[in-house]
Amino acid sequence: MADRKIILGMVLTDGYGNLPGAWRAPHVDPGNYAKVEANIRYAQAAERGGFAFLFTPDFPAVRGDVEHSTISNIMDPLMETAAISQATSNIGFVLTGSTTFQEPFNTARQFKTLDIMSHGRAGWNAVTTSDPAVAANYGKPVADRAERYQRAHESIQIVQSLWGSWQKDAWINDQESGRFIDPSKLQPINLRGEHVASRGPLALPPSEQGQPVIFTSGGPSPHLLALAGRYASGFITEVWTIEEARAQRDALRNAAHEAGRDPDEIKFIVGLMTTVAPTVRDGLDRRIAIAGDVIEARLPHLSAMIGVQIQPQHIDKPLSSEQLAGAHASPMDPRSAIALRVAREGWSPRDVLAHGVIDYHPVTVGPGKVHADHMQEWFEAEAADGFWLAPDVYEDGVDAFVDEVVPILRERGLYPDGYVGSTLRENLGVPDQYGLGAWLS
Amino acid sequence: MADRKIILGMVLTDGYGNLPGAWRAPHVDPGNYAKVEANIRYAQAAERGGFAFLFTPDFPAVRGDVEHSTISNIMDPLMETAAISQATSNIGFVLTGSTTFQEPFNTARQFKTLDIMSHGRAGWNAVTTSDPAVAANYGKPVADRAERYQRAHESIQIVQSLWGSWQKDAWINDQESGRFIDPSKLQPINLRGEHVASRGPLALPPSEQGQPVIFTSGGPSPHLLALAGRYASGFITEVWTIEEARAQRDALRNAAHEAGRDPDEIKFIVGLMTTVAPTVRDGLDRRIAIAGDVIEARLPHLSAMIGVQIQPQHIDKPLSSEQLAGAHASPMDPRSAIALRVAREGWSPRDVLAHGVIDYHPVTVGPGKVHADHMQEWFEAEAADGFWLAPDVYEDGVDAFVDEVVPILRERGLYPDGYVGSTLRENLGVPDQYGLGAWLS
Repeated sequence: MADRKIILGMVLTDGYGNLPGAWRAPHVDPGNYAKVEANIRYAQAAERGGFAFLFTPDFPAVRGDVEHSTISNIMDPLMETAAISQATSNIGFVLTGSTTFQEPFNTARQFKTLDIMSHGRAGWNAVTTSDPAVAANYGKPVADRAERYQRAHESIQIVQSLWGSWQKDAWINDQESGRFIDPSKLQPINLRGEHVASRGPLALPPSEQGQPVIFTSGGPSPHLLALAGRYASGFITEVWTIEEARAQRDALRNAAHEAGRDPDEIKFIVGLMTTVAPTVRDGLDRRIAIAGDVIEARLPHLSAMIGVQIQPQHIDKPLSSEQLAGAHASPMDPRSAIALRVAREGWSPRDVLAHGVIDYHPVTVGPGKVHADHMQEWFEAEAADGFWLAPDVYEDGVDAFVDEVVPILRERGLYPDGYVGSTLRENLGVPDQYGLGAWLS
Repeated sequence: MADRKIILGMVLTDGYGNLPGAWRAPHVDPGNYAKVEANIRYAQAAERGGFAFLFTPDFPAVRGDVEHSTISNIMDPLMETAAISQATSNIGFVLTGSTTFQEPFNTARQFKTLDIMSHGRAGWNAVTTSDPAVAANYGKPVADRAERYQRAHESIQIVQSLWGSWQKDAWINDQESGRFIDPSKLQPINLRGEHVASRGPLALPPSEQGQPVIFTSGGPSPHLLALAGRYASGFITEVWTIEEARAQRDALRNAAHEAGRDPDEIKFIVGLMTTVAPTVRDGLDRRIAIAGDVIEARLPHLSAMIGVQIQPQHIDKPLSSEQLAGAHASPMDPRSAIALRVAREGWSPRDVLAHGVIDYHPVTVGPGKVHADHMQEWFEAEAADGFWLAPDVYEDGVDAFVDEVVPILRERGLYPDGYVGSTLRENLGVPDQYGLGAWLS
């Protein structure tokens, strides 16, 4: 493990950022959601920093308060990254695609086409979908969990089999003799599950990495761990503390072991939202300037989390020693202890909230060292193999991370000096695979 | 109709060409099937010639003799054109997508994303699919024609409704007030047909042309004409003679009229394979050099078509006056009269075949004037509104057409001097549309 290095990914959402209100920041073009050109720039910035991959979540339905918030989703993961692939050369693409509502033949075809077009940089984040709004867009009912996971297993097996149905050496391509393909090496797969089926073959040759890398993501339910342990080379999750993350990573590695694999072949990637600024104070001010109303509105939540009544008019007043003495972290919410620790540092409630203590994954705010320290601590504690970063605002947040944090990680020997290779597999450090479960053989 | 101009499109297939054996030509890279870079170059060449669109047929299954022929299909129409859209600025994309095996929500989302990313250059060639090999790839049985067309109507209506579900002026995008979308203008469509359904809305704003242009394609069955008359702005077909083409175009225009539309709003686009060369003789030699074995193998077919026994050893000997006197064109096959006419010009049977008389649509061979004459004749006879060209070999065939044919068409006033606009609708001359059947209102 001496040469173990941090893997970095970056989430791509709707072109603004991951801090509420990012679309309203004066230096952000509010039309970015419909401009692939913006995501191309952000992808290029991440590539400059040696990021192994971009990650696109996907929620194909409208949700939340779209009047005051954004769509929080890329227009279409496959279509936008097909475009981005042509403007980048090393960064990979881990795209969420539903096993519940997509046809395996389409998934196999579109992801492998992306893999070929990007010269071996595609990954499929295979997830089940249980949301009724998404189901309704496909005119389908929500299936129960057992059925969703049964279909997920079938779908991944069919997709991987289709990927392998053009055997690695099937393409003869001999202009002299006139033999294009060896037909004995392009054969049907004839798989029929309970929920999905495909005959094949899929007429797509291997990419530079063979076929797309399988990821999955979510909370560590037994169903998901079994799926990940069997098929995935990467696991994307949101987790708040080192302890929790270590437990989840251990469970994941154990699931891979139980599936007969080397646990080092599956990478556990945790979320981190970053605000890079010259000082912590500057970073908090940036967050307050952009997301001030959302931050203020969370005051009652903070009060409840740490068990201290804070009046709105006192939001800018650090808690008194009496208040701090009476405060207590809830054992039910790991964010609660973090909030209390930040409050004890003497920050006002507004600043505590601006630290992102109620966000959906850890938030680091301040100069490069703050972010590097966080990542180093998690990485060395074996709580993560890497991080998927959610910059506060894409327009300047990616460049700031690349300029201020990446050099420190490199100085500390935690992060590769450049791309290890040109394929996603190489940059993740995961083994080759072609067809269904090559590693089971 | 004084300003009526020819519309040109070009079919994109597997990166080689439309003449059998194109992949074996010495100046062609036999790896092009997996290289989007090749299709990007061909698209840029077509754009240099002012082509209104690229057309991608789609047959998502393996067919034919792949040992000696190619896959005859682009890797994936949507993914490759997403990439091509970023390397071009005016040419449109008419992509085949099945109403039988694709989910309307996915079709709506991916085509509209392409439309937005290309700044208004996408079109959907909506077709039904009856092939058992394709059905098997989706694990489905082949539906009967009535069901396929019922599903096609439902699918197109759902897709168009989803396109309109983000109303044209829904996007407020006011950074000052913090209002992103007017939620009253982003509303569910709640459509449920017999075969497909979707709730929506689809969170994608209008493109520069509103939404993708609907095409359809195939032989003029009553089912297809009814579908085209109601929804399509373009119709792509293969037809051998001016008489047949006029009849089909009239039937199509009548179908539009019956659906309450102006028949000029639907463009009838016929196929044409081109071999551009300094002389006809050079063109035939090029075709023989590339497709010699296929040409030779068609000799018995030619014999049968014109009712003359031709021995293989006489393939290079023009037919005698006795043979020609006894020859007759079959009234059942319009290509037969063309073959006989070419034979009477004194060409040998090999050269008659090299004229492409047994191909799936008309073939023109020779200097620029030959191609321009053919197109002018068809266009002025109102047998076509435009042509989708199938160059013999992409590598040099597109540039040759652009350099040798396009200038003649322009000199004759038959073809626009440059792009009329930047959207597909503008370059086709078809009206705006947003949502479902805006022209019915």
